[in-house]
Amino acid sequence: MIEAALYLIPVQLSDVELKHVLPELNLQLVSHIKHFVVENVRSARRFLKKCDKSIDIDSLTFAELNRHTRPEDIAPMLEPLERGEAMGVISEAGCPAIADPGADVVAIAQRKGLKVIPLVGPSSILMGLMASGFNGQSFAFQGYLPIDAGERARQLKEMEHRIMREDQTQIFIETPYRNNTLVAELCRVLPPAMKLCIATDITGPAQSIVTRSIKQWKGQLPELHKVPTIFLLYK
Amino acid sequence: MIEAALYLIPVQLSDVELKHVLPELNLQLVSHIKHFVVENVRSARRFLKKCDKSIDIDSLTFAELNRHTRPEDIAPMLEPLERGEAMGVISEAGCPAIADPGADVVAIAQRKGLKVIPLVGPSSILMGLMASGFNGQSFAFQGYLPIDAGERARQLKEMEHRIMREDQTQIFIETPYRNNTLVAELCRVLPPAMKLCIATDITGPAQSIVTRSIKQWKGQLPELHKVPTIFLLYK
Repeated sequence: MIEAALYLIPVQLSDVELKHVLPELNLQLVSHIKHFVVENVRSARRFLKKCDKSIDIDSLTFAELNRHTRPEDIAPMLEPLERGEAMGVISEAGCPAIADPGADVVAIAQRKGLKVIPLVGPSSILMGLMASGFNGQSFAFQGYLPIDAGERARQLKEMEHRIMREDQTQIFIETPYRNNTLVAELCRVLPPAMKLCIATDITGPAQSIVTRSIKQWKGQLPELHKVPTIFLLYK
Repeated sequence: MIEAALYLIPVQLSDVELKHVLPELNLQLVSHIKHFVVENVRSARRFLKKCDKSIDIDSLTFAELNRHTRPEDIAPMLEPLERGEAMGVISEAGCPAIADPGADVVAIAQRKGLKVIPLVGPSSILMGLMASGFNGQSFAFQGYLPIDAGERARQLKEMEHRIMREDQTQIFIETPYRNNTLVAELCRVLPPAMKLCIATDITGPAQSIVTRSIKQWKGQLPELHKVPTIFLLYK
């Protein structure tokens, strides 16, 4: 038996052996949890099977939490935990509740005074930051850049301002099929001396985390179409 | 043999079994690395011994990188990597280059076009954020709050502004012996409805990650003197 809590269970970012990116503790805990809140049932089942081949998937319960979930349906998902059973939160990739909808159920657990336990796992944001060489004492993750051209230009200006004035590393992502357009845009609008780190396929076989100035990137942009990528900017 | 690269090797945050917080891959890689850049030699040796009891510590080289290191002494530390040998970066606790001096050597490695590989491990910033229930789509880590009362008040105001206007979770730390003073101050100056998550001893035996409103915290503040703690604010 394990402690009754809401365990936040990270998932691998790419198709690697789990022991490359997850501590053994995670795999041990997972096989003791019967009730899960997941972003997607199919991929959560696949992940659990990978954690523990002998797992009896049919004995588990899954509640799906994603952008289609109605807010009023979230609180009832925590019933097993309220009666004293451990629960797990699993997102599609990486750490639940970071850049994904899991935060809603964690917020409700906190409001109800239930115990929440985060587990260690891969985060492309954090790993990109570590390997960028940028300031790790002050940084901001901005999520997706706005789609509207005007808002987007405004946000890039504001990020530039925070890099220069606050010494704050700026981190963001883009819908993968627009990555190439984004990098071209960054090279067009940012000062030549600004540094851009492009971190792709983190933990995966094609992992590449490269920091160059905008001036150096120009004319030799990598092919990023549909490749999961994190972008970081710093002076 | 392993690939010649600068491996960023996370360290446990508290006195726990390594397999609880580090993937097996890290332990395997570490025993193949002979040259290290470390925040503190003594604790790095202790960590390596914990990773691999059979390790021959005397055959390893250590260059110390911390706030006493002169900037011009950093680049030469990378010589082993430049001649094709794997190197590791190890900080006192948590992920190197996040809220610590390792970023300087990573920046130089990037400038020289050397390969940098971040490994998975515990980050109190990220684990605190996951378990807070706060917005994980937009967040900023601000490092230590300023000591000067005026600057400090100004920074708290600015953080409040970014929470309300930008929907951005604010994360910060304090020198541990001033934690109690900080929390009392937060309760005095922040709006009663603002939410504060206090995350202490992450991954340790006394781990507690609790989110409440400022109003709820008032009158029942936890004892945080000298306990490693991360603070998070959100609406």
